[in-house]
Order: sequence, then C-alpha cells, then structure tokens
Amino acid sequence: MTSPIPAYACPGTNRRVILATRPVGIPQADHFQLDEVPLEPLGEGQFRVRNIYLSVDPAQRGWANEGANYSDAVPLGSVMRALAVGAIVESRHPDFPAGLHLYGWFGWQDYAVAGPEAVMTRIERVEAPLSAYAGVLGMNGLTAWLALSQVGRPRAGDTVLVTTAAGAVGSAVGQLARAAGGRVGGLAGGAAKAARCGNRFGFAAAADYRTDDLAAAVHDLAPQGIDVFFDNVGGPILDTVIRAMNVGGRIVQCGTASIANWVPAPTGLRNEREVLMRRLQWGGFVIFDHAADYPAALAHLAPMVADGRLVHDEEIVSGLAAAPGAIARLYAGQNEGKSLIFIG
Amino acid sequence: MTSPIPAYACPGTNRRVILATRPVGIPQADHFQLDEVPLEPLGEGQFRVRNIYLSVDPAQRGWANEGANYSDAVPLGSVMRALAVGAIVESRHPDFPAGLHLYGWFGWQDYAVAGPEAVMTRIERVEAPLSAYAGVLGMNGLTAWLALSQVGRPRAGDTVLVTTAAGAVGSAVGQLARAAGGRVGGLAGGAAKAARCGNRFGFAAAADYRTDDLAAAVHDLAPQGIDVFFDNVGGPILDTVIRAMNVGGRIVQCGTASIANWVPAPTGLRNEREVLMRRLQWGGFVIFDHAADYPAALAHLAPMVADGRLVHDEEIVSGLAAAPGAIARLYAGQNEGKSLIFIG
Repeated sequence: MTSPIPAYACPGTNRRVILATRPVGIPQADHFQLDEVPLEPLGEGQFRVRNIYLSVDPAQRGWANEGANYSDAVPLGSVMRALAVGAIVESRHPDFPAGLHLYGWFGWQDYAVAGPEAVMTRIERVEAPLSAYAGVLGMNGLTAWLALSQVGRPRAGDTVLVTTAAGAVGSAVGQLARAAGGRVGGLAGGAAKAARCGNRFGFAAAADYRTDDLAAAVHDLAPQGIDVFFDNVGGPILDTVIRAMNVGGRIVQCGTASIANWVPAPTGLRNEREVLMRRLQWGGFVIFDHAADYPAALAHLAPMVADGRLVHDEEIVSGLAAAPGAIARLYAGQNEGKSLIFIG
Repeated sequence: MTSPIPAYACPGTNRRVILATRPVGIPQADHFQLDEVPLEPLGEGQFRVRNIYLSVDPAQRGWANEGANYSDAVPLGSVMRALAVGAIVESRHPDFPAGLHLYGWFGWQDYAVAGPEAVMTRIERVEAPLSAYAGVLGMNGLTAWLALSQVGRPRAGDTVLVTTAAGAVGSAVGQLARAAGGRVGGLAGGAAKAARCGNRFGFAAAADYRTDDLAAAVHDLAPQGIDVFFDNVGGPILDTVIRAMNVGGRIVQCGTASIANWVPAPTGLRNEREVLMRRLQWGGFVIFDHAADYPAALAHLAPMVADGRLVHDEEIVSGLAAAPGAIARLYAGQNEGKSLIFIG
C-alpha cells in the first residue's frame, strides 16, 4: 500500500542519528553520528512513518547513558530513541492506514518502521498544530496532567510550586494547577523565564532559582508554605523546598534535571525527617506507566489548547543535523519552550 | 468524688519527673530531676488519674529537644511528656467515672490532672494485661497497624522489610504484614534480636544491620526486591534499602531513630532519583494525626492479642526513678521489647 500523500513519499533512503559513543551524564553532539541507509522492508503488521517533528526531551539523557534506568539504554550504533510526530506512508497493518498521523517512538530519523507498540497516541482528528502533539498534547502535557492529578492532587486554595516552570512540562503544570484552583509559584532559570511564567503562563509568582538565598526566594513565592511541589530538578532546590512544605503536602518527583551525573550517587541534605515531620507524600512519576490514561488525558487537554486556556511555547529548529546537540542545549537551559526539530 | 479503689488512693503528694535541662539529641538521665509536690485541685470537667504503667518512647527524644517537630517541646521545669496507662481515682467529669482505665497523656508522674483531650483510648473492657494497652494495644500497635494499612498497603505476596524489627512497633508491623499475606524480612540491632524476629515474631528472615555489607544483607533478606519498606530509622540503612525497592514500592517513614541529631541537618545519599526511577510512594506517618481511627484499630488488634496471633515483648522496670535514664537506654538498643515503667 503506497501513501496517497505525495509530500511524504519515500526517496529510497533513510537518514538517521546514531548513538556512536556512550556518554557519562549529558550527551553532547559528538556522541552522535549521522548516516544514511536504504529503507528497510516492512514486515507483516508493520507500517512506515515519515517523521515530521522530532522531539528533544530531558529523559533522552537517561536513555543514552549506561546503568539502571526506567528504560533500557539505547544500544551503541542504533538510532537515538526519541518521540516524534509523523504520518504513515506505507502500511501492512489494517488498523494503521497510510495518511494517519501518529505520535510515538519513531526515533531521530526520517523514516521509522514501526508496529502498534511504538505508538503513544493516534491523532485521528488534528485539532491543533501538528507540533503541539509532540509537546503540550504529547508526552509533556500528558505528564503534566497525569502527574499533577494523580500524585500532586491540588485542591482549591493549595499553594503549588513548580520547577523548570517555564519549560514544556512546568508551564503546563502551572496552568493546570491554576485551573484546579491552586495558587501557583514557579522557579525558573533566569529572570526572563521567571517573568514569562507570570506574563505568559499566568503563575501568581515566579523567581530565578539562581539566587544567593533560595530559601528566602521560596518563602517569598509561598509565604503560607507549599502544599504541592511539582519537581523536575531534584538536588539542592528540592532540599530547600522540602523544608518549606506544609504538613500533608505532596511532592511529585517527575525529573532530576539538576544533577548531571548519578554515578557515583551524589550526596545532599537528608530528607527523611522532613517526610516524617511534615507527613509528606512523595511520589515518583514516569509517564510511560500510564498509557491506558493517554486518551482521557488527551481529551481533557485538547479543548484547553484549542480555546487558549492552555498555552505553550515551542522552539522549532529545522533539519536532522540539529538533533545531536539538542539534548545538551536543553540541559544548558538555552531553549525557550518545547524543543522540536522539524524535518517534514 | 473519691475513688472506690483503695489501691489507687491518693497519698496527698505527687512525685514527678521534671525536664530540668534541654538536651541536644538524646536525653540522658541527668537532663531530668525528680520532685514531689502537693496534689493539684481538680477543675470542673477534669479528673485525676493514678498512673500504673508509664511508657518510654523514641518520640520522647523529639519532645525534649528544642526546634521544629511535630509537637511542641516540653517546657523546662515541666513534667516530662509521656503516655501512660492509669485509672481514674477522682473525677469532676460525668463521662469519666472513677475506676475507668485510660491510656493517654498523663506524663512521667504518679498522678495526672487531665481532661478528655489527654485521653488516647478508653479501656472500657480489659481484654489483655493492662501493660498491653501502653504497647501493642497502645501507640506502638496503633502506629504499626494504621501506618502499615494506610501508607504501606501490603498486598498478598509482597515483600515487606521492617527496621527496628524486634522493637515494639517493628515486631507488630512484621506480624500484621505477614497476616496480610506478605513475606516479611527484618533488620534489627544484633544477632539475638534478629533471631527473635524469626523465633518469636514469625518473620521469614531477619538480619543484624551492623554488618560490613548491608546491601548484601538486604539482598539476602529480599532477593526479589522490596515492595513495602516500613522504616523507623532513616540514615544509611534507608539509603541502602531504597536502592533495593521494587518499582511501585511504598516507604512508610515512621521514625528516624538512627540519626542522633538533626541540627545541623546531616547529609546522605541523594534519594530523589530512586523515588523517580522506582516510582516509589514515600509517606510520613505520625500516629497523632489519626485519633479518629484509634477505636477501629483497637477493635482490629485486641482479638489478635487475645488469641495469640499478635505477640509482644515487654521490658517492665519498677519505680519512677527508672524513668530519667530510660530514653537513652532505648536509643542504645538495650531494651528488649516495649519499655514500660510500673509505678502502680
């Protein structure tokens, strides 16, 4: 079955970004190589996806590194694991017709040969720009909503503090927590991002975490204490915020981006007495456990994106050659909004 | 109204254990003084309790120390805060008649003047030795059952690991987790206590935490990983066990007894990535939040004590003069079972 969409027609080769050497910590551009190989044939039950937007995500650091993680390490010599939005150009699966847009595990490459297990969401009806399905309607927005509603559980009047507050997940968390009746504060990297939390995303207050007195900044953001802490960074910021939590507070541990390297395990303030004294509930959240909830989450979020209640930033660069350096750029805090690579 | 029970008749004075100086860390005998004062008159709505068993609890360390805690510090010059089992000998409250046995906040003294707010449980019908109401049917057993069932939530087949496993809370947790279908391992201080976990309390396995290779000992206790960690100690033991937790595991933080002093806050391995990767749910538990659940918990536990499904150890010493050194003795691990002082 050949695609009816000429724009996505296969040119006969596939350009790929390969993990060439194993990073320790943050992957840099020179850990990757680009190559070009003939298209693989489709097996029964498979389909070929022409990638349009490649996603760049903090979790890719963990996927590229050796060692225990919540998914296996990407093997050296393989296509770098990545989410992407694309369209089916050729199919040998009756439920996945050519022309259907998908969001899934299609890797940093032009074309993926995939089966149903690689699909995160089917985009049956495109209600927003396609790029949104890789961000605020993709892993980032699904993470924000499901982690907030299942682990954070904000109640009306709660004070909610979010790290990486201007980022793809954090900015969605802030807006969703506010919509739930919370008073939302943010910590972001730099004054410009902090200002954007208020101006663009409607946070009640936000601050630059790079300050001489973080405890004072946190107190200014949340003078009544914090009921829900949505944390994407860990490290000393977590150590400070946990000491400003209210009794019965919830911590969503959604990432640990502030720590560049977990081998050997770094040290920090002991937090178990804070958990005890403050009767905290501290929960880890990994979006991939929650595939059964994606359709409901998408149904919750898509109307909010459509009518402007949930806004998002994107930083889109063009061309596969931009991919190798994109993870390091994320960790340097140089991106503004969800980082995508357009190769359509 | 005078007591109908001659054995508890008031001799006219009250002997008390006073907090004389402020400890930093574990209170020692010389932080306390004994005195003797005339009996206070009863106000309307009050009753006089003749204490019979005084309780010695790890939490008394926190109550005696300065600084943030889940209850206010005991003021210098006041009776040391303690739980006790006693009987009403004189009453000006219609719902609290003389002769009624109570468990509550009656302090380290012969007689307490108290109101209903000081009562933890009413012992309407004495189904077990009175001492049990200060231990396995008192705060220790209530803590074990409510923390395990509300935060730990063991399922049949789960591996449950308990610290201070031979202690008053730990030994109850182990038996209750086993009754819930769990496979229970324990960590205790010394080979004798570890052996007692198996012989006396029915743990599947137990080990001395004082070993050169704690990670190996934990692996031997729980080769399939740990689903529920009931932790009373914190510190390096927590750091080791958290790295052996299964995905989706629960940690009950019920105490932090291994750390002698929290000012300044000590450091240890960072655990936020473990929370994230293993999708842990880590909750603090303080029994005093759960007063509404005491009657139901007592109703659950009392038949188990009565028919021998829930056994407990007690170490009972006689005389008020034993009280001042009793907390330090607890932290030195010198007691065997629930520590009580009989003064009836």
